[in-house]
Amino acid sequence: MKALVYLGPAKKAVQERPKPEIASPTDAIVRITKTTICGTDLHILKGDVPSCQPGRILGHEGVGVIEKAGSGVTAFKPGDRVLISCISSCGKCSYCRKLMYSHCTTGGWILGNTIDGTQAEFVRIPYADTSLYHIPDGADEEALVMLSDILPTGFECGVLNGKVQPGATMAIVGSGPIGLAALLTAQFYSPAEIIMVDLDDNRLEMAKRFGATATVNSTDGRALEAVLKLTGHRGVDTAIEAVGIPATFELCAGIVAAGGTIANIGVHGTKVDLHLEHLWDRNITITTRLVDTVSTPMLLGSVRSHKIDPQAADNLPLQIRTHP
Amino acid sequence: MKALVYLGPAKKAVQERPKPEIASPTDAIVRITKTTICGTDLHILKGDVPSCQPGRILGHEGVGVIEKAGSGVTAFKPGDRVLISCISSCGKCSYCRKLMYSHCTTGGWILGNTIDGTQAEFVRIPYADTSLYHIPDGADEEALVMLSDILPTGFECGVLNGKVQPGATMAIVGSGPIGLAALLTAQFYSPAEIIMVDLDDNRLEMAKRFGATATVNSTDGRALEAVLKLTGHRGVDTAIEAVGIPATFELCAGIVAAGGTIANIGVHGTKVDLHLEHLWDRNITITTRLVDTVSTPMLLGSVRSHKIDPQAADNLPLQIRTHP
Amino acid sequence: MKALVYLGPAKKAVQERPKPEIASPTDAIVRITKTTICGTDLHILKGDVPSCQPGRILGHEGVGVIEKAGSGVTAFKPGDRVLISCISSCGKCSYCRKLMYSHCTTGGWILGNTIDGTQAEFVRIPYADTSLYHIPDGADEEALVMLSDILPTGFECGVLNGKVQPGATMAIVGSGPIGLAALLTAQFYSPAEIIMVDLDDNRLEMAKRFGATATVNSTDGRALEAVLKLTGHRGVDTAIEAVGIPATFELCAGIVAAGGTIANIGVHGTKVDLHLEHLWDRNITITTRLVDTVSTPMLLGSVRSHKIDPQAADNLPLQIRTHP
Amino acid sequence: MKALVYLGPAKKAVQERPKPEIASPTDAIVRITKTTICGTDLHILKGDVPSCQPGRILGHEGVGVIEKAGSGVTAFKPGDRVLISCISSCGKCSYCRKLMYSHCTTGGWILGNTIDGTQAEFVRIPYADTSLYHIPDGADEEALVMLSDILPTGFECGVLNGKVQPGATMAIVGSGPIGLAALLTAQFYSPAEIIMVDLDDNRLEMAKRFGATATVNSTDGRALEAVLKLTGHRGVDTAIEAVGIPATFELCAGIVAAGGTIANIGVHGTKVDLHLEHLWDRNITITTRLVDTVSTPMLLGSVRSHKIDPQAADNLPLQIRTHP
Repeated sequence: MKALVYLGPAKKAVQERPKPEIASPTDAIVRITKTTICGTDLHILKGDVPSCQPGRILGHEGVGVIEKAGSGVTAFKPGDRVLISCISSCGKCSYCRKLMYSHCTTGGWILGNTIDGTQAEFVRIPYADTSLYHIPDGADEEALVMLSDILPTGFECGVLNGKVQPGATMAIVGSGPIGLAALLTAQFYSPAEIIMVDLDDNRLEMAKRFGATATVNSTDGRALEAVLKLTGHRGVDTAIEAVGIPATFELCAGIVAAGGTIANIGVHGTKVDLHLEHLWDRNITITTRLVDTVSTPMLLGSVRSHKIDPQAADNLPLQIRTHP
Repeated sequence: MKALVYLGPAKKAVQERPKPEIASPTDAIVRITKTTICGTDLHILKGDVPSCQPGRILGHEGVGVIEKAGSGVTAFKPGDRVLISCISSCGKCSYCRKLMYSHCTTGGWILGNTIDGTQAEFVRIPYADTSLYHIPDGADEEALVMLSDILPTGFECGVLNGKVQPGATMAIVGSGPIGLAALLTAQFYSPAEIIMVDLDDNRLEMAKRFGATATVNSTDGRALEAVLKLTGHRGVDTAIEAVGIPATFELCAGIVAAGGTIANIGVHGTKVDLHLEHLWDRNITITTRLVDTVSTPMLLGSVRSHKIDPQAADNLPLQIRTHP
Repeated sequence: MKALVYLGPAKKAVQERPKPEIASPTDAIVRITKTTICGTDLHILKGDVPSCQPGRILGHEGVGVIEKAGSGVTAFKPGDRVLISCISSCGKCSYCRKLMYSHCTTGGWILGNTIDGTQAEFVRIPYADTSLYHIPDGADEEALVMLSDILPTGFECGVLNGKVQPGATMAIVGSGPIGLAALLTAQFYSPAEIIMVDLDDNRLEMAKRFGATATVNSTDGRALEAVLKLTGHRGVDTAIEAVGIPATFELCAGIVAAGGTIANIGVHGTKVDLHLEHLWDRNITITTRLVDTVSTPMLLGSVRSHKIDPQAADNLPLQIRTHP
Repeated sequence: MKALVYLGPAKKAVQERPKPEIASPTDAIVRITKTTICGTDLHILKGDVPSCQPGRILGHEGVGVIEKAGSGVTAFKPGDRVLISCISSCGKCSYCRKLMYSHCTTGGWILGNTIDGTQAEFVRIPYADTSLYHIPDGADEEALVMLSDILPTGFECGVLNGKVQPGATMAIVGSGPIGLAALLTAQFYSPAEIIMVDLDDNRLEMAKRFGATATVNSTDGRALEAVLKLTGHRGVDTAIEAVGIPATFELCAGIVAAGGTIANIGVHGTKVDLHLEHLWDRNITITTRLVDTVSTPMLLGSVRSHKIDPQAADNLPLQIRTHP
């Protein structure tokens, strides 16, 4: 089969590879019908992810059709259309039993990282019963591929961890695909104000169409003042970091209101300064999270019941593809 | 009356000052029977707290007797024995109505800071109805003075924010009065393991008597390894920072397990390094908090019902007095 | 002044009464500009509320203008436009300090019940600072009067207690003003399905315009089967009881899914059967609540930020006025 | 092998039965070393449990040793000492993925009910990886058998659902094994007062040894007044129903404080009266639950760390054996 293979920093190629086989009774083989390129794949290509070794087939997102199911798989059979979770969950270990699938002792983020991934014609999915989801009839596969990673990441790491509440004021720093996913899913909780911060006016324009109530272009280095002004100098109840560099984290720390929450989504490559001399008495919360994909069934239901606008969502993968 | 007055960095004196008067109908005048010196008072004396100006009577902890009550005070009358909260709460502003008294727009930590405090024969307490508590008959005043600040601080900022749970593993970094208060009140939730870290063997010895299940002397700079070894290299569910310097915060960040919480209590004077490059995918929570004293009624009840051992508690103020 | 006075069961009259005076420093006198008649007023007129004695001026909802403020009132001054909460809260007692204002030891629901109410030209409001809210400039008073009681009741007793979640399935039994208030505010949390049950097709039609995804006319006595069929025989995650009779409570108990919640809003005059022989192993929760009006600031903000459609809301008071 | 078999109402016999075999790759065969008789077994013998048909081997509690493990079992191997959960959990269905194992679509309470149980020399355990627990070295098997059902039931259905908090006041109605299990595990949360209610002075005496702060013998029909008197007529924050008849549930409804919780554990055979005419405005919560055994790992840890006194616990199974 054809597969996109990582060959070391800055090197990749489409190669001919053998079709994967069932290796354990709980595996399934999925024929991929849609996949995407995630920002994390680009990190791998930069050589930033040492766990991913040359020779690895890339990709941890996708939808497809069950080609073969191991003898221990009970929820899926050949021909079933499925959504692939970016997180593999054994369903048995102490982390899985706490709904923290991201830290599954034999799973977690392994696809396209420590085992071959989805940017291929076929992929082997371990723990199929607890790592795949049935696709509802009539669903738009183009939109659903976002549910492998982007939407649950924005929702769990940003919105749930950020404790977004009806009537609250929030800011999302970073209007890329993940920031927009947080923007879309934050609206499940009806915050009063959603301020979107980015360097790119086109992205901010898109954020407005997706529901942002205000936007701040941070090119001038004055985003902190701009957000504080927009909130009557009170700051935001929730600040979502969706970039992954010190400047954006530190912006979040500057705009969070007393009693508020900073929910970090960004993948960071270096330490940041945490100004506890200003924050120790501010009653704030900071969270980090690798997505657990525990919200996938709910998100699938929300797509089905049109609580997430499929037309809006449709634009996200396009964004992702052009993400530098 | 006699009062201990701050006269600028490293300067203080016992002076004769006029007895305070009712300034607002919601004030009460309290005759002090017991007070203490808090670590924060020592910060003031170092000149680290610019909001506290020379001429200020120090002190934000104490028990006493109502001398006079303003016309708007309904819950207290002259002669009532009272516990003074270190936090003044108006009970009306948006923060008070969210139970975040620490950020009361006209109160918060003002005693011995922006208004005269408790290290005097008499003190004026604003918002008396919502900032004082009746002392139960027969209660030991020596023990109760801890409830002005130390016990609620250890409990709210450390134990509640740290989400201590039955069966959990925790560490407290710093075995001074605040760390010991966290240790005492953590046991309300029956954690399985409480590891105490400090530089001083005497304090660690006291921690064992107070309920620590293991202790680590960090003098050798190898506390991180020691705590990880004690937890089978899993780390702790809750790490409580009770010192207030970068090294101890960073130790907490090193020992917290995936999915765990760092609850900061320490008063920090400088920024710390936050290694998000290691923490972004660890699903951790970091909290800061100035005590709200919302738990004071419960703590008073726990002293009354002997859930906190008064004999053990009795040692804490002594510790505090000798705190450098 | 003119006032609507309760004169005993089925008897009421508009009478001339003396204008109220400040009785305590924390009181304010409000000149009423809008008021409404609540279902509870009709209960009083039936003689069902013994705490309300003949001679009482009715009414616990309203908006108006501060006429006079007691010396202890700090947040309001004459001329301020205010929303009156149906619940008076002292802000000091143990219940108020737990945000359970409904059970304030000297307040709670007293207006138009144990003290004179709002269906008059002027009303005395005790604990003005903690029982009144500033009206934002430009707000529609007609819509805001709903925030005195109806919207917080639907939201707190129904939606918050019912733990409505994104993607969830819910039913509201009773499509009167309170049921519609629950319907409007449930949408803060983006449930996937909201099934509305009532005897009246006109009300169900209005419910559809307000956001119901399905309606069931229960006239034929087969609502239970109809709701179960709509949910694939799984039942609803949240069942909100918004009527107050045994049949509707028991319908809720029949349609709640395993793991779900029944949130009672209805004012009941008699006991109901609770079929624990079917429910003991179903992992359900049942809640009751007198509104605390803790959500009033958020609801005011949501009206201001148009998260609640003012046009839709505008119909509710009209409904209320014709409520039998 | 020898097995205790249900032969229809009031009929049981020890019979010779074939040793169970692996029927599915996720099964394990366990050689029983300890088992117990639960109150529910007695319900079966009365003919109250129609799902349990004549010919069924009884029993859903036990500890033992793995005799054989199916090819899909990864966490256990022959020779491992194991605790058997009374609840079988597939780990895959929508209920298991919400940690509501009690309602597992192919598991739940099936042992000794719809499939053969533990009162035999050997038992087949479905979903072994997610329904068995390793026994720590040196643990007392006699004490651990309580963790199959009794302790998690008291803890989850009573203590967790009842939201027991430090400093709270609570009552447990019923001082049988389940009530005592609630009493033991409630102390994880350090309530200030635990009032135990029963008809039998011996049981109440045992409750005092287990940590009850007050006891009420309800033989005289005046338990309601007695509990209210003990709580200064405020009632209890948590009332745990551990009997399963209308009188005891209605007692709980009479003694619960405004804002409090009734946590039902009892298995009820008939409806109860719920006096919503008194409770609608009391802001109370009522919960029901079939145990999920999600707390089993924590409870095992608490036995290991001696947070539950093994000596005290040791008496519980004896109690159970004599339970009428």
